[in-house]
Amino acid sequence: MSITAPDGFVAAGGSAGIKAAGVPDVAVVTTDDGRAVPAAGVFTGNLAAAAPVQISRAHLQATGGRASGVILTSGNANAATGAPGRDAASRLCSAVAAGIGARHNEILVCQTGLIGIPFPTDAVAPRLAAIVEARRGNAESGAAAARAIMTTDTVPKTALVKGAGFTVGAMAKGAAMLAPNMATMLALCTTDADVAPDVLRTALRAAVDVSFNAMTVDGCTSTNDTVLVLASGRAATPSLESLTAALGEACISLSEQMVDDAEGATKVAHICVAGAESDGAAHVAARKVADSMLVQCSLNGEDPYWGRVVSELGSAGVAFDIDKVSVAYGGVVVCAGGVGVTHDAGAVQAHMAGRHVEIQCDLGLGRGTAAVLGTDLGYGYIDENRTTS
Amino acid sequence: MSITAPDGFVAAGGSAGIKAAGVPDVAVVTTDDGRAVPAAGVFTGNLAAAAPVQISRAHLQATGGRASGVILTSGNANAATGAPGRDAASRLCSAVAAGIGARHNEILVCQTGLIGIPFPTDAVAPRLAAIVEARRGNAESGAAAARAIMTTDTVPKTALVKGAGFTVGAMAKGAAMLAPNMATMLALCTTDADVAPDVLRTALRAAVDVSFNAMTVDGCTSTNDTVLVLASGRAATPSLESLTAALGEACISLSEQMVDDAEGATKVAHICVAGAESDGAAHVAARKVADSMLVQCSLNGEDPYWGRVVSELGSAGVAFDIDKVSVAYGGVVVCAGGVGVTHDAGAVQAHMAGRHVEIQCDLGLGRGTAAVLGTDLGYGYIDENRTTS
Repeated sequence: MSITAPDGFVAAGGSAGIKAAGVPDVAVVTTDDGRAVPAAGVFTGNLAAAAPVQISRAHLQATGGRASGVILTSGNANAATGAPGRDAASRLCSAVAAGIGARHNEILVCQTGLIGIPFPTDAVAPRLAAIVEARRGNAESGAAAARAIMTTDTVPKTALVKGAGFTVGAMAKGAAMLAPNMATMLALCTTDADVAPDVLRTALRAAVDVSFNAMTVDGCTSTNDTVLVLASGRAATPSLESLTAALGEACISLSEQMVDDAEGATKVAHICVAGAESDGAAHVAARKVADSMLVQCSLNGEDPYWGRVVSELGSAGVAFDIDKVSVAYGGVVVCAGGVGVTHDAGAVQAHMAGRHVEIQCDLGLGRGTAAVLGTDLGYGYIDENRTTS
Repeated sequence: MSITAPDGFVAAGGSAGIKAAGVPDVAVVTTDDGRAVPAAGVFTGNLAAAAPVQISRAHLQATGGRASGVILTSGNANAATGAPGRDAASRLCSAVAAGIGARHNEILVCQTGLIGIPFPTDAVAPRLAAIVEARRGNAESGAAAARAIMTTDTVPKTALVKGAGFTVGAMAKGAAMLAPNMATMLALCTTDADVAPDVLRTALRAAVDVSFNAMTVDGCTSTNDTVLVLASGRAATPSLESLTAALGEACISLSEQMVDDAEGATKVAHICVAGAESDGAAHVAARKVADSMLVQCSLNGEDPYWGRVVSELGSAGVAFDIDKVSVAYGGVVVCAGGVGVTHDAGAVQAHMAGRHVEIQCDLGLGRGTAAVLGTDLGYGYIDENRTTS
């Protein structure tokens, strides 16, 4: 199921010549009648924000949180491209707007790919009309849109959540640079819920905090991170809690799919920290462990070297007492009171041999808890990232 | 040359059974007459500080900054070992004190190796007397001490600096976990300068800031980081500036040797940031670039993907304006005003093919500058760290 599942949306995916000939690289998702509906976005905190981030932010501000559609491209991030890059992102919006009878600033834009390469607008623009024209509300069109935004992803990523009287559909791309305050990741949600822009914005922010902001692959925050949601208003009016829960469930599903598909990773790490002075402190500590190259290497080697976990907890910058900390792998306690304890080494080994590895840490100081999704670090990550060619 | 070069110090290195049979694992460096002299230390900021860090801190405090000697062991970090670990570190000090006629708290202790393994005191203690007895003031003894503190180091690391009327000798170990506020690294300096403890402490702190705190391999701050200095007072009384300069030169040399010997690295990265709003901001930005796994992978692949550098600068948390940033590799500007510029690609490629790669960033905002030493990320780091066996 897909981005077109909620009532009121159509989508298409196609090739416009950004990537090699014929490879899908443009997705368009719009309302089925071209009218603007409530929309919200969460964007990268990177001060080197790419042109599409600057344009989408400006458009949402100009419309007071309404949009008719989104164009998403892959293969070129249109980042570090200066004023010509902003022109290029703007022209993409204009092309879609013209095709569906919307205003220019009612279209949002997301782009992903290499940084610092001028965007080939002149080659791409003439090929957009056919893609816009091909929009349909069926599952195949939604799937084509999800495929068209992939970069190093090996599988498309979609989610569908049924709320009380409304539906959330979603798609995303992202496989590395997954880090604090989002990732080289694009995500688009659609819903037929009937909500005001400010409610939608509040719900999206909360959904992002429990999903994309609770995962990490390499600690890198990209120039292009964007999460958008459009709400057609064709279905019921949910409570804020109900909407937040449904958006959160969709975003958590997408973030799990991203970590599971992380570049070159062989493990999905579930780092859980309890007993911190606050949930915020627990989150900081869990992220420190998940981002540790040494811990990641140990996961790759299936080595329960808990000393590295304790060392990361101790240097996370949050309250810590070595004499109170405990660490468990898959529920088997290997360290308690800050020292190693006898344990079932076979059970730990068996747990670490699986694809999903859980490291449970208890700081023994308070009631704060958090969980962060991460990965191991192996040859695959290096192979994927050592050259761009 | 070595730790024994300054007048007034003797050293020895030997095997006490921490590592496999016969492998050197204990170094002892003391004053030649056993008398306490001014001493200072800088220790890890990790709240999971190992037992030897806790003991050495306490000893320096108790003596008001004086010490007769240092014992350094390798193969077991004596970290996350609880009260028995503190007893073990204390017994190491007692053994040396007894051998040279000093008081227990006039001996400092440094340990490095695996975390979380009980320290085998009963096996080690009986073998210490012979090593203490073997101390000599010659170059061979200094070299033996430097070899005895190696872990994954492939070469011993020493430095010698001639000041105006005084000498600084130094040795260190460290090859990974090299990060903010020091590293899994131990360094010991000796000098025959005639200075008071508080002057020595001020000079050491400044020397550490420009050396060990300006390098990174993996962003991990260890439980055992320690830099110590002892001053015999047998030579001239230098100015604070002169002493700081000499200690700084020795520490910079050691830190360069560490990065050059970093686990599995094939490149030494010199990340220079200029044009920041302050030197502190420049340091934060340079470290963000140096710690980036994506930048490190690009260095491994000799790929001048400057977009990743700009992205890290933009997410470093310091003032940044994409339109003002420039990036150069080996002096060849590849990005100016935030966009790519035509350049001599062959010259960049040739520079990146070397072992030392310089990335010069200019934020275009102010006069702040900083440089951080880093490495690439390749298979070797993973091979070294995926298992402890």
